[in-house]
This record gives sequence, structure tokens and C-alpha cells, in this order.
Amino acid sequence: MKVQILKDNLAKALSVAGRVVSTRGSLEILSHILLSTEKGRLRVSATNLEIGINYWLGGKVEKEGDITIPARLFIDVINSISSEKIDLSVEELDVRVKSLNDNLVIKGISAEEFPVIPTIQGKPSFVVKSNVLKEALNLVNFAAAMEESRPVLSGIYFNLDGDKLILAATDSYRLAEYGLKLENKAEKKLEIIVPSRTMIELSRILADLDEEIKVFVNDNQILFSTKDIEFTSRLIEGQFPDYKQIIPKDNETKAVLESSEFTNALKVASLFARESANSINLVVKPKGEVEIKAVSAQIGESDTVLKAEVEGKEGEITFNGKYLLDVLNNLKAKTVSLEISGKLSPGVIRSEKSLDYVYIIMPLRS
Amino acid sequence: MKVQILKDNLAKALSVAGRVVSTRGSLEILSHILLSTEKGRLRVSATNLEIGINYWLGGKVEKEGDITIPARLFIDVINSISSEKIDLSVEELDVRVKSLNDNLVIKGISAEEFPVIPTIQGKPSFVVKSNVLKEALNLVNFAAAMEESRPVLSGIYFNLDGDKLILAATDSYRLAEYGLKLENKAEKKLEIIVPSRTMIELSRILADLDEEIKVFVNDNQILFSTKDIEFTSRLIEGQFPDYKQIIPKDNETKAVLESSEFTNALKVASLFARESANSINLVVKPKGEVEIKAVSAQIGESDTVLKAEVEGKEGEITFNGKYLLDVLNNLKAKTVSLEISGKLSPGVIRSEKSLDYVYIIMPLRS
Repeated sequence: MKVQILKDNLAKALSVAGRVVSTRGSLEILSHILLSTEKGRLRVSATNLEIGINYWLGGKVEKEGDITIPARLFIDVINSISSEKIDLSVEELDVRVKSLNDNLVIKGISAEEFPVIPTIQGKPSFVVKSNVLKEALNLVNFAAAMEESRPVLSGIYFNLDGDKLILAATDSYRLAEYGLKLENKAEKKLEIIVPSRTMIELSRILADLDEEIKVFVNDNQILFSTKDIEFTSRLIEGQFPDYKQIIPKDNETKAVLESSEFTNALKVASLFARESANSINLVVKPKGEVEIKAVSAQIGESDTVLKAEVEGKEGEITFNGKYLLDVLNNLKAKTVSLEISGKLSPGVIRSEKSLDYVYIIMPLRS
Repeated sequence: MKVQILKDNLAKALSVAGRVVSTRGSLEILSHILLSTEKGRLRVSATNLEIGINYWLGGKVEKEGDITIPARLFIDVINSISSEKIDLSVEELDVRVKSLNDNLVIKGISAEEFPVIPTIQGKPSFVVKSNVLKEALNLVNFAAAMEESRPVLSGIYFNLDGDKLILAATDSYRLAEYGLKLENKAEKKLEIIVPSRTMIELSRILADLDEEIKVFVNDNQILFSTKDIEFTSRLIEGQFPDYKQIIPKDNETKAVLESSEFTNALKVASLFARESANSINLVVKPKGEVEIKAVSAQIGESDTVLKAEVEGKEGEITFNGKYLLDVLNNLKAKTVSLEISGKLSPGVIRSEKSLDYVYIIMPLRS
């Protein structure tokens, strides 16, 4: 293999592929990155067996070939080199990295030992804009369960029907659902669950893109394809809970609050709620106020009163403050609405900016 | 106590005082900050028994008094509050924090339990500009020993004689010495050693200041006094090593290198020098080149050639790369000079920007 590439392009490819490299795995090959030439381009590949990434970049390919190289060392080397162009060449299992000033040799492992990253043939199941998918993922990812005692709850539910795609996640204490309209109708209906861990990585990659994403699905895998990147994830088997019935149809009390004020008030209250499993008490008053309180026997107490547009009767509820802060930190809206129906029914957060988004929080006993 | 203050001023005082608060100490009172009124101002005090900080800020004092308050909680609260003004009042041991929206109570401890932060009366030993002292500290601090097996090596040596102040530090593998000229002659000669840990904190505080610093010294303490802040540190007892004789008088080989190129080359070489205790080999060639090499049996090897202005004969030396990177990261000069005299004599780094600075590195066997 012999390739000349621009340093900045290689650094960008490595910053994407490097994210899925196993750092503490038992298999040495998974801490490596696969470099291979393909149709006049260099392909950079990485996998942790759950996610696979292929990243193609342009370059001058003088000799075809492939090799794997220790990811962490290679990334550090490329980021430290001060040169516009880099020559990569392979001599047996040695990768020679040449820049204007540097002449480096890094020992690799044969490309044959690298696991196959699955691909999916045929037509895409659906096509979606990168910024739309990114917003949807950012607003549902945090609601998935972190631990995997019930695997389906650690995933993001994708429900595709015609031109309607619904994403949902729940850890059973809160639920987030985002509905989006595709530009083209999908031929087949689809119901799958994708690990939220992999969707967090996808969302980070999407942050730098502005293009159409083609999405391919088979029985075990989902593949997101952009111009230069293929991102593959395994699917989670199982049935996603039938959550529709827990979304309240109406409410007794509604308050519209200024997001940043609400966020600051919750941050202050959280400081006093550490001993009480983050219990924060909210009282919505028809005179146009929301009172936010937390009490700690040891450190003290907080009481914050915010102005709000209130509809309906006075209402009170206690939430885990973290669940409120999670959604406020991701909703980029100027105001949010809080809808409640007494102390025992789930509360609802919506935003005027994302009309097809709904976030449900189960109340705590107060 | 009853005081009204601006939130931003209090947040700034807390960010300074908070740095010396003990977080894992056994004495609960050391995790607290002392608030006290003094001549119409609020004084914020913190100490870890090694460093003491008093920070005065203006405010409207309605009732004199004092109290201590848990530092971490108070800092988090003040940073989370969105209000321009804050009212602090004390009811027995409760501190009430009132802002536009918030009404908080934080439980404190009586001010009587807070340790006395020593002060020093009389005339200052010397006066120095904050930016001059900061540069000097930044260029010597990193050369002090991190561990305290020989306490004097974990300190910064201050040698004051007339209008000449010398700062020096050495961990016995490298030595940094910075000489500076004061605007006024000091009355008394002075030789003291101050813990480098406390000088790192002082340097961070100086970064935000542009004023004259008055420095007071007694047998056990040094006190740096600015307009609003008093910073006290204990001294280290003992005799600083007589290092003058190890500073080479001349050299056989001298190379002037571009600092950022040299830094990048050392970063690349360091990646290949991890197995060999960071050994990096330098060869200075009279044709105007410096070659920088590192070899690892396991991961590969690096070889970087930089252009340089070279005087004298060809020379070779091996250094711990970290010691070179430490000085390059702190010298803000466009070029640096490297002076060597064979493989076995100490090397010298100087910069045209800080003429009274010299940095000595002991060679490694290669």
C-alpha cells in the first residue's frame, strides 16, 4: 500500500473512527484501525463489534493494499504532525508515515485479522436529513435506560409507517417520543430497536454533517450511509413496551415557563435535593407562578418562585429533578410547557419549537 | 450579618478562595468558607492550613457579623443563581441567600471554629508587578519536585538582594532559574523557599491581575498582598542546594530552533519513547539540522529532522522528552536555543524573549 493524503482529512476520519475503537478490550485487533485502498480512495475502518464505521477519504493511491495500525498511537501521531500532506506506505507489517519533517515507522497487524464490518445490500428503508435525525436522537437518547437489565429499555425504538417515523425511548421512569415526517414514503413498515449507546455516537457524527442519510435495515443490523461514512449498528431483539396509553390525553394544570429560568431554578433546587434522591417539588399557581422547592435536613432548603403563564387549576407534583434537567438541556426552545393532573399522574413536557415531541415523567411520592 | 452584594463579584471571590478549600480533609471546617464583614466590605476567607486566602469585596453592609458556609455548595449555588444582586443574612447558624427569584437557607458553622489565617505586619520586603511575578513563577514552577522526599526540592527558592530577585527550582534532574530586576531596592537580603504547590495557585490568581504585589515575609510565612486579595503561604525550612556550579559557562554546540516545530517534533517522538522512560535522542548537525529520534521495540520508531541555526561542532545528547516539553510549553518565545557540550554534560535551554532565564537538563545515557 502507498497513499498520499491531506493530514486534516485523515485527522477528521480518525476522530470519527477512533470513537468506536475498543481501548480496554481483550482482543488486540479491536484496538486497531483498518486502512485499505478502495477505488482510488483510502478507507479507514473501526469496530467494537457493536458499531462498525467505514470512512472513505480522497487521496493519491500509488499502490493498493491494506494493513491495521494501533488506533490510539496513530491518532496521536497524526494530530502531532505539523505537515499538510502525509505519505503512508506499508512494508510487510510496518506502516511508514512520512511528512515534511518526520519519518516514522509504526508496527501493524495483518488486515486479514480484522473483523468483517457487515454491510447491507439493496434499497434503503428510508431517507432522512442529517439535522432532523440528529435533533430527534438528541431528544430521545437520554430517556433510554443506562443499564441493560431489560435490554429493550436500553434502546431507541424506531417505528416507520409510510412517511411517518417515530423515535421513542423509556427507562420506565420517563418516556420521550419524537415524531417526524419524511420527504418520501417508505415502501415497508418497520419496527426495530437500536442500542441508545450507538445512537449517541451516531448523533455526534451527524453534528458535523448537513446531508441526506440513507438508512438500510436487515434482520440484525441497521446501516446509516452518508456521502463518506457508513455507520453500522446491531439491533436489539425484543418487543418495545406499548407506551401509547401512558401519554396523558389532557391535563388539569398547564404552565408555560422560560426555559433558562426554569433550568437555573432546577439546578439550584438540585443542590438541596441530593439527600432525597433528587426530589424536587413543583407547585403551579393560577395567579401566574411556579414555585420550585427542595429540602435537605443536613444542608438547608431552597425555594424559588418563577413567573409563568398558567392555565387550569392549582396543581402540585414532585419529580426527580435530573429528569427535568435532562430534557431542558436538550430542548433548544425559549419556553417549555409543563402539564400536570394532580400529584399521582405523569407530568408532560412539551415545547412550541418541536411540536411532535412529548416527554413524560412519572411523579415521585411527596 | 446582613449584606447585599453583586453576584458576579461574589462568584469571582469564591472562584479564587474556593481553590484552596480542602475537599477530602478530615476537618469539616476546612471545607467551609468564612464570610465576615470588615469596614463596610465583605471578606471571603479560605484555608487548607498551607495556603490562606482573604478576598475583600465591596457591598452594602446593613449589619456586621460572620459565619462559615460549606464551600462547594455555596459556590454551586452562587453560580446557578440568575440574579444580579444577592442578599446574604445570618439567622443563628443559618445563612439565608436571597435573589430575585430564590430564597435559600444553607446551614453554616460558627465563625469561631475557623482557623486564624496568619497576617504579617510592618513594611513589605519587596514589591513586584503581577505580570512579571506570574511569568517568573510559570517558568520555574514545573521544575520543582512533585513528591516531597526532599522537602527543599518541592519548593521555589527566592533570593532577594537589593533590586535583584532570583527564583529557582530543581528536582535534581532539571533546574530552572529566573532573574528579575525590581523597580525599588529591598532593604534586607532574603533567602526563602516557598512550596511550589502554593506558587502554582498564586500564579493562577495572578493571571487575572495587573497591579503591584506587595510581598511580606517573616520566619514562617510569606504574604502576597494585592488590592483585594491577601495570599499567605507557609515556608519550607532548609537550605536550597548550591546550584550555581552546575550551570554551564559555555558550550561546544548551539542550535536555535523554531519553538512550535521543536514542540511538535518532541510530541511525536514522545509517542515512541514511552517504553524507554521517555528517552529522546537529539543530534545537532553543523549543516543546519537537528535530528530528533525515539525507538520502541514494540510499537516502532520516529525520526524527525528540523532546520536550525547551528554554531560549533556536531553534538549528540539524550534527554527525557518531558523535561523539554515542560519548558517549551511555558516559554512563549518564537525560537529557543539548545546548548550542549557532549553526551555527558547538562544541556541548556534559553530564549531570546526571557534573557534572564536559564533551564538546565541532565542528560540520559544513550
